[in-house]
Amino acid sequence: MSLIVQKYGGSSVADAESIKRVAKRIIATRKAGNDVVVAVSAMGDSTDELMDLAHEVSPIPDQRELDMLLSSGERISVALLAMAIKSMGYDARSFSGPQAGMRTDTHHGSARIVEVDPVRLRSALDEGAIVIVAGFQGLSLDTADITTLGRGGSDTTAVALAAALKADVCEIYTDVDGVFTSDPRVVPLARKIDRITAEEMLELAANGAKVLYIRAVEFARRHGVTLHVRSSFSNNEGTLVYNPKEGDEMEQPIVTGVATDLSEAKITVVGVPDVPGKAAQIFSLIAKTEANVDMIVQNVSAASTGLTDISFTLPKSEAQLVLTALRADQEAIGFVSVQHDDQIGKLALVGAGMKANTGVSAKLFQSLSDAGINIEMISTSEIRISVVTRADSVNEAARVVHSVFGLDNDIEATVYAGTGR
Amino acid sequence: MSLIVQKYGGSSVADAESIKRVAKRIIATRKAGNDVVVAVSAMGDSTDELMDLAHEVSPIPDQRELDMLLSSGERISVALLAMAIKSMGYDARSFSGPQAGMRTDTHHGSARIVEVDPVRLRSALDEGAIVIVAGFQGLSLDTADITTLGRGGSDTTAVALAAALKADVCEIYTDVDGVFTSDPRVVPLARKIDRITAEEMLELAANGAKVLYIRAVEFARRHGVTLHVRSSFSNNEGTLVYNPKEGDEMEQPIVTGVATDLSEAKITVVGVPDVPGKAAQIFSLIAKTEANVDMIVQNVSAASTGLTDISFTLPKSEAQLVLTALRADQEAIGFVSVQHDDQIGKLALVGAGMKANTGVSAKLFQSLSDAGINIEMISTSEIRISVVTRADSVNEAARVVHSVFGLDNDIEATVYAGTGR
Repeated sequence: MSLIVQKYGGSSVADAESIKRVAKRIIATRKAGNDVVVAVSAMGDSTDELMDLAHEVSPIPDQRELDMLLSSGERISVALLAMAIKSMGYDARSFSGPQAGMRTDTHHGSARIVEVDPVRLRSALDEGAIVIVAGFQGLSLDTADITTLGRGGSDTTAVALAAALKADVCEIYTDVDGVFTSDPRVVPLARKIDRITAEEMLELAANGAKVLYIRAVEFARRHGVTLHVRSSFSNNEGTLVYNPKEGDEMEQPIVTGVATDLSEAKITVVGVPDVPGKAAQIFSLIAKTEANVDMIVQNVSAASTGLTDISFTLPKSEAQLVLTALRADQEAIGFVSVQHDDQIGKLALVGAGMKANTGVSAKLFQSLSDAGINIEMISTSEIRISVVTRADSVNEAARVVHSVFGLDNDIEATVYAGTGR
Repeated sequence: MSLIVQKYGGSSVADAESIKRVAKRIIATRKAGNDVVVAVSAMGDSTDELMDLAHEVSPIPDQRELDMLLSSGERISVALLAMAIKSMGYDARSFSGPQAGMRTDTHHGSARIVEVDPVRLRSALDEGAIVIVAGFQGLSLDTADITTLGRGGSDTTAVALAAALKADVCEIYTDVDGVFTSDPRVVPLARKIDRITAEEMLELAANGAKVLYIRAVEFARRHGVTLHVRSSFSNNEGTLVYNPKEGDEMEQPIVTGVATDLSEAKITVVGVPDVPGKAAQIFSLIAKTEANVDMIVQNVSAASTGLTDISFTLPKSEAQLVLTALRADQEAIGFVSVQHDDQIGKLALVGAGMKANTGVSAKLFQSLSDAGINIEMISTSEIRISVVTRADSVNEAARVVHSVFGLDNDIEATVYAGTGR
């Protein structure tokens, strides 16, 4: 008997009909002889509605109270799902995050899971029940207050449960068929990936792929959890996100996918004295603003001036805060000026096979050059090459690169609207 | 410094504006130098909406899951109320029933409070916070599952908190000005009662007065909690429900109020052999159906036949079940026939002063006789006289009795629509 953890997003449980459909799918998994543990998000737009209510009573809602408020959404969906399953003749039991043993730190709104103590889930499984757990929430170890896990919290709940219960697989149900070689809305010839390593998935997620949240993938990689990303609207196999053992990499295709991201801005600190400690000074300052810096590039300094330029990208919403901080310390650091550019696009080419293959970067740069697309920044890891272009070029760049690296499908992908939490 | 417990029903927190209004009222109580603990119901009709959802996914929703579902309603209202108060500059903290230490039995849907362990509430009060507790809910001691307290659950939560925290008063905010001498919709000259003993209030609540739930009053009487029933829409003093000390009764008016109830039916078991044990046999049988029998009357038997009739009243909704049970055992018990009458009305005259005053019953019966209203059943306690009349006579009976016992106001009462949970 296998133990399967399943996660259903908000769009999969948006109304009573959807909940009954999901109940049937869960029962089918149970009937196939598996133990089943399910993590569920709040119904459809209910979280947004609660958020609106919060803003009606308070301009800046208290974070602790916001967690108490928002966590009620998943309690509603788990209770409804459990009663739907029971009325179809199968035993099911719902658990809130705290009841499921999800213990977190006290960082309200984006709490980290500290430990999972699934003692109640285990005994419910032992009694033959299907276990339904409220995603996105936990209990703070220090204060015993309700916490929420932030964006992608239900994915993270599912992966954490799979790790704690040593599940055979963690199925992430969503409204698309799996992970694609690129966003089908940008690259119509994108195709579904059958298998991808967690490491590659991490790079794709970190570089703009929306189907899985980076925290959940990180968690899966660290704990050796196999993910199966699939559609709750079909029975098709989706994408297996796995942790390769030694030797597996030999079979890897060179390139797995192309991600694009239009959510970042570029800041360039111009004319930084090229002496030791200046970069550290700049990024210590930025760290204090808690901004999430992504790519960092420093060119060699011009010998004539002894000055260099340092560029970095970060979420557009965090740019103003960082600019203000930099300008306040301009004299102390001694740079000449600071530039802000929010019309950039980022393209990331990801593939575990790159490690063993030279020439991938050259081929990437050549293909963009052939298409007349200018590269403004470059950053690489062992399994990823990222480039920054003008914002209005990045989609075209993705189509070109997708084709050059042989990722194109024979037919255009069907594009679904929206995605769940 | 006093400790005041306040309870706000669903109609008082129906939307963002109402929540802000309630927040201001709570802050005013705090500013007056009191510690404040608040029990809150779910917003407006939200419980009904959750119930509808439950019935969409399951014809007979599982009780444990229903409690998980419905308890989310109060989590929403407490979080919103706490954030509203915080945004007005006062410290407030919300607690779910389980967090507030409400421990119950496992009777889902109508759990009984077994103990209250308000350790978290005390430390929040010590830190100067206003404490906001989700009404209507607790945690089962045996199973650690969420339970709900059933009808009037938020009133009961408030009273239990007041008892556990030894509060000076428990204010029950509702959409009427207090407890009235009779239902103003029936008796337009009804007037607000300033003070009433818990014992009298219990008789009024048990006999159809809707403003307070009988369980909450029972709890208040048993634990010596003083209640103040008042409107959340005005600053007027409401009705004080108190537990008299020795001697207090001397000051009591003879009669405090007149309650009417159209929700009961009458069943008469005709021709019961007048031998020992027959009544016990009948009511043991009824007890098995879990019906809530109210009044019981047995007349002396006719000497010629050795047979007697036993009549009793019970909620209309439970009559069929009891009739079926009686007919199944007709032969064993040996009665002649059974009659069912759902066109009855019940009137109860309540007053602690009755104990020391003779002639109250005579005056009651005479006044009804003068008005041409026939009495079908009579039952009395030390502080109450109940009579059963035809259903279409009971409102007129209430107006007559209200007037004869000097309860009439000089002006007609304002009638509000609806009432909170």
